[in-house]
Amino acid sequence: MTALTPPWPKDLIDLDDFSPGQLIHILDTAENFKEVSEREIKKVPTLRGKLVVLFFHENSTRTRLSFEVAAKRLSADTVALSASGSSLAKGESLLDTARNIEAMKPDALVIRHGASGAPNFLARRLSFPVLNAGDGAHAHPTQALLDLLTLRETKGRLEGLKVAIIGDIAHSRVARSNMIGLTRLGARVAVAGPPSMLCAALAETYGVEVYTRPEPALEGADAVMMLRIQLERQSGAIFPGAREYARVYGLNRERLRLARSDAVILHPGPVNQGVEMTPEVYNDERSVILPQVTNGVAVRMALLHLLIERPTARVTA
Amino acid sequence: MTALTPPWPKDLIDLDDFSPGQLIHILDTAENFKEVSEREIKKVPTLRGKLVVLFFHENSTRTRLSFEVAAKRLSADTVALSASGSSLAKGESLLDTARNIEAMKPDALVIRHGASGAPNFLARRLSFPVLNAGDGAHAHPTQALLDLLTLRETKGRLEGLKVAIIGDIAHSRVARSNMIGLTRLGARVAVAGPPSMLCAALAETYGVEVYTRPEPALEGADAVMMLRIQLERQSGAIFPGAREYARVYGLNRERLRLARSDAVILHPGPVNQGVEMTPEVYNDERSVILPQVTNGVAVRMALLHLLIERPTARVTA
Amino acid sequence: MTALTPPWPKDLIDLDDFSPGQLIHILDTAENFKEVSEREIKKVPTLRGKLVVLFFHENSTRTRLSFEVAAKRLSADTVALSASGSSLAKGESLLDTARNIEAMKPDALVIRHGASGAPNFLARRLSFPVLNAGDGAHAHPTQALLDLLTLRETKGRLEGLKVAIIGDIAHSRVARSNMIGLTRLGARVAVAGPPSMLCAALAETYGVEVYTRPEPALEGADAVMMLRIQLERQSGAIFPGAREYARVYGLNRERLRLARSDAVILHPGPVNQGVEMTPEVYNDERSVILPQVTNGVAVRMALLHLLIERPTARVTA
Repeated sequence: MTALTPPWPKDLIDLDDFSPGQLIHILDTAENFKEVSEREIKKVPTLRGKLVVLFFHENSTRTRLSFEVAAKRLSADTVALSASGSSLAKGESLLDTARNIEAMKPDALVIRHGASGAPNFLARRLSFPVLNAGDGAHAHPTQALLDLLTLRETKGRLEGLKVAIIGDIAHSRVARSNMIGLTRLGARVAVAGPPSMLCAALAETYGVEVYTRPEPALEGADAVMMLRIQLERQSGAIFPGAREYARVYGLNRERLRLARSDAVILHPGPVNQGVEMTPEVYNDERSVILPQVTNGVAVRMALLHLLIERPTARVTA
Repeated sequence: MTALTPPWPKDLIDLDDFSPGQLIHILDTAENFKEVSEREIKKVPTLRGKLVVLFFHENSTRTRLSFEVAAKRLSADTVALSASGSSLAKGESLLDTARNIEAMKPDALVIRHGASGAPNFLARRLSFPVLNAGDGAHAHPTQALLDLLTLRETKGRLEGLKVAIIGDIAHSRVARSNMIGLTRLGARVAVAGPPSMLCAALAETYGVEVYTRPEPALEGADAVMMLRIQLERQSGAIFPGAREYARVYGLNRERLRLARSDAVILHPGPVNQGVEMTPEVYNDERSVILPQVTNGVAVRMALLHLLIERPTARVTA
Repeated sequence: MTALTPPWPKDLIDLDDFSPGQLIHILDTAENFKEVSEREIKKVPTLRGKLVVLFFHENSTRTRLSFEVAAKRLSADTVALSASGSSLAKGESLLDTARNIEAMKPDALVIRHGASGAPNFLARRLSFPVLNAGDGAHAHPTQALLDLLTLRETKGRLEGLKVAIIGDIAHSRVARSNMIGLTRLGARVAVAGPPSMLCAALAETYGVEVYTRPEPALEGADAVMMLRIQLERQSGAIFPGAREYARVYGLNRERLRLARSDAVILHPGPVNQGVEMTPEVYNDERSVILPQVTNGVAVRMALLHLLIERPTARVTA
């Protein structure tokens, strides 16, 4: 059995580098770590003496804080590097900056970057684990893993679930990583969005159902994931305006009735209330947006542990 | 006796939430912690494995550093969040940001915010302790507590002292918290400032003497607290100009002679030398401005300890 | 023997405060600490419970990160202070800010400042160790020490080496500290740069050879140190343009042939490839630019340890 196990990746770039068995193992590890955050002393010595470098090129509250809290709960040290205070401002290339970091002997680099592919570019050139905390429109694998953990926790399983993902599918790294993770673990995914926010190859590439209206995606769904509309980034070209978007694609009580009565509601946050969903839906008891945040810390603890320590625990594919 | 003890507040919003006995208990605890900062190893394991989130919406050196040092001396972990790097920049509400922080299971939130009432608004909605590090013109309770500690240390008591507070009383959170704390612990408070920096209800609301000239406030004072003039914020409307202010309200050697010969001089810092006081007074041996800073760390250690650990030690009211 | 030992300086301002024996002792200590960064658990309890304040007035990736990593590997706590978020923005003087920091009882202050002399000014007024992380055009002693360590490591000795330093000698704090350290430890230094980047007193003040062309400096050199051209700071007055500079002073394969065949290439980073050196030279196996970064952590660990702990180990002058 263990002979069939694919090698454990050095880095976390996106979920397609991980076998279904490895993804399950990450979720199981996260579930174990979740309990640490509930203790009186919220700390384990797992990564004592390890150094995690947090390199956030784009602003982020949730993800940066979540990684920092995860590292500290494992007793790792953290140092942070932002684009503005760094040598990048002096014209140094990303790779040169990373090689300088490498020379200080860190144990992991967590990077968020506006350019799709930047984490992968570095991962192939650096000797230590690189964890993608979001790169351009490419991938956001820790977000997808916390979504998977939240779904498995609330629905009891992933296999056979119908998950609707609604919003700017074509430009969302959250959608991409989720489509990969969910289908890999046996869920059925239906995506919906305005035609300008979809692209032709989605169905074929990811094995998902694609709709230009939210209703067929919501029909009978076990979970609804609303993507954040980047109001601050949208230009008129692909986006009809927040009010129009809300009217046709926003999640309100009527539309939510199309899903199963026990459907859970996810959102990567921060939510534009009144756009992606009504305040009523946001505050619905089936919303699991804050449990997602809690799971984010657990998932990142699991990943830091698994990639830095590379424990030899056998995982069957 | 213990039956009369009011419950220990969950949060630190302002000093009027604390009974005189509780205030004394905070000062006693701070006095004990002060010794830690004098040790060879300046650290105790009191808050090991606890997470303190520092959320500073307004710039601050002293207060942010002081809280961070206090948390670290107690072996707590800290993570920092600023307004610019946070989701608030993406239009998320303060409460949503705070609820996201809560989902990461911190043990305390230290917040400085430009809007009066923001810490209290959050404290009533969050399950864990919120510590006000200064909110608008409302309150700055850790500053007042460090002032109380410094006064008790240098004068040997608080009861019966005459304390003069001079400056922009009406708009100063430092003045407000001090008026509450000092009167609650039996000190006599006399405030003075230009009419535009006073307000009608001061005497009645806080039980203090109010003067438009500094001299009667200084007369026989055991301590003189000069407030910072926010030169960068003043518009012409209420402020006659720094030179004019210094001439009439600034503390110089002559004016200081009105106070008792052993009167101590306090200031929350940073001092505008030549405005609130002459350089001569700033450097006078009775100035306790730097001991105030030292006491700030001790007071914040005490508060983090008392609010996070909620030790069951009985305090009589 | 020990009677001849000069007292160990309280601070690190520049290398001329240290005797040759003390410099060697710093390098030996750094060499010992280097091994810590190679361990599974990259941390020793040397500075447990100590507080290191990092005060960076100018941007810096390498140096700030390196000091922070060094402090954490020694188990010290760190707090950071930047100019923008500090009371300096409120008009407080540097000394007042530093005295406030002092009142919080730190164990060391690491400062980078644009004004030459600022660290020394503070060091003479503060009771605890001040470490200069680069001040104006004056000194960058930790950079010079990591250069010395790298040279000793790769060449086996310092005494008798010929070291060429090429670039803006007159305005470079890296050059100044290196000229002092190298000559003090018996190396022969030859500097070269455009006449506008040299000054008359160099030969006499530092005991170095001075050339306006790189060739005689490179001739037979054991090591070549290329200085960073501050493209972002240069005005036309002293700088002929990057292309012209590269043509006459840049290190390329032909020019490098003048040095010994086993000469190593140093640069304080970040490198402007194509200006100070060609990409070919940058990637040459004799380039030790990344080992310099690794040694930077070790040197800073040694200095924090030696200045904070002031171990009584005897060092002969």
